[in-house]
Amino acid sequence: MLLHGYFRSSAAYRCRIALNLKGVSYEPSFVHLRRGEQRSPAYLVHNPQGLVPALETESGDLTQSLAIIEWLDETFANPPLLPRDAHLRARVRGFAQVIAADIHPLNNLRVLNFLREELQCDETGLDKWRKRWILEGFDACAALLQLDPEGPFCFGDAPSLADICLVPQVYSAQRFGVDMSAWPRLQQIFDACEALPAFADAHPHNQPDCDL
Amino acid sequence: MLLHGYFRSSAAYRCRIALNLKGVSYEPSFVHLRRGEQRSPAYLVHNPQGLVPALETESGDLTQSLAIIEWLDETFANPPLLPRDAHLRARVRGFAQVIAADIHPLNNLRVLNFLREELQCDETGLDKWRKRWILEGFDACAALLQLDPEGPFCFGDAPSLADICLVPQVYSAQRFGVDMSAWPRLQQIFDACEALPAFADAHPHNQPDCDL
Repeated sequence: MLLHGYFRSSAAYRCRIALNLKGVSYEPSFVHLRRGEQRSPAYLVHNPQGLVPALETESGDLTQSLAIIEWLDETFANPPLLPRDAHLRARVRGFAQVIAADIHPLNNLRVLNFLREELQCDETGLDKWRKRWILEGFDACAALLQLDPEGPFCFGDAPSLADICLVPQVYSAQRFGVDMSAWPRLQQIFDACEALPAFADAHPHNQPDCDL
Repeated sequence: MLLHGYFRSSAAYRCRIALNLKGVSYEPSFVHLRRGEQRSPAYLVHNPQGLVPALETESGDLTQSLAIIEWLDETFANPPLLPRDAHLRARVRGFAQVIAADIHPLNNLRVLNFLREELQCDETGLDKWRKRWILEGFDACAALLQLDPEGPFCFGDAPSLADICLVPQVYSAQRFGVDMSAWPRLQQIFDACEALPAFADAHPHNQPDCDL
């Protein structure tokens, strides 16, 4: 299996965590987003959307991180990344989608570039933009967890799809200078995840293509 | 079951289609987005994110349209909204997420309001913005379907989660003045769906809260 990704992409980071949690070995392939390699004809074969990640499997390419992670969860049974109970599973997916649909796509590279280049947005505006969606999103995430205050992780005592989405988003928030003290539970969950090798090994700074 | 929605919300529209396809009866509850009712304390109990939809079930509230639709699919078996084969299921989910993560959240009301009010974006800029994400997204959607050119629907001869996401996005594109002729297959799928009562009955203009 080959994962096309970029060290700092939240969506690729999610897939690395899921692969590590499942103990599935994969070959990484690096697509340098800042150099525009995601728009090369060679890469568009794997993902016509021109975004990372893409997962090359024996049956063909898969795209979109949540679809890839659900596929991993269905293909490699243990440990499960979603709870068995349908209602709780829907709550985990809902939490994940707050991040994957309503925070991350607003703050990714192509959108920030469009704001800067096409709408002449200055750095003050960009900073306001980035923080707004993280603040609104994390407020919702924290509220959605209030029914489940027990576990060290988002939903109970093992990491799930929710934690897989939360950790890269907290990393990104830190990078954008967001003060996490408003959401102590999210910070605690982040810390609990970071203590696990599956999360730590997937960290952007531990990837071979990290050029920071 | 009670669905909190708004006639013109793409995400609520998706849920209405899924409920209709499953033949599940539900009570609609109307949250007037332009009047800001989604931020009322009474509504935030159901969805702390302050967005529609929310589905009130016997076991509690569910949020995020794709999580709600997956729950419906797991709870009411027929007709299935996802294929049985895991790889094809991942492709259907990937297609749905191009729309649900990378088109729709960029063009929803809260984001357009922020561009207008906080970043002083004028109507020319807003038009460019709205069209850009639809064009990029539909190009990707059309390319992702090239492996499956057979069915009247996105993936084969019955509507799936992919069609459920596509139809509200095409409705929205038409509303924003996007010329669909660049994607004849997407338009054909839209027409095939609109001929089904489950889709037609879910159309924004057929909702009791439509005030156009």
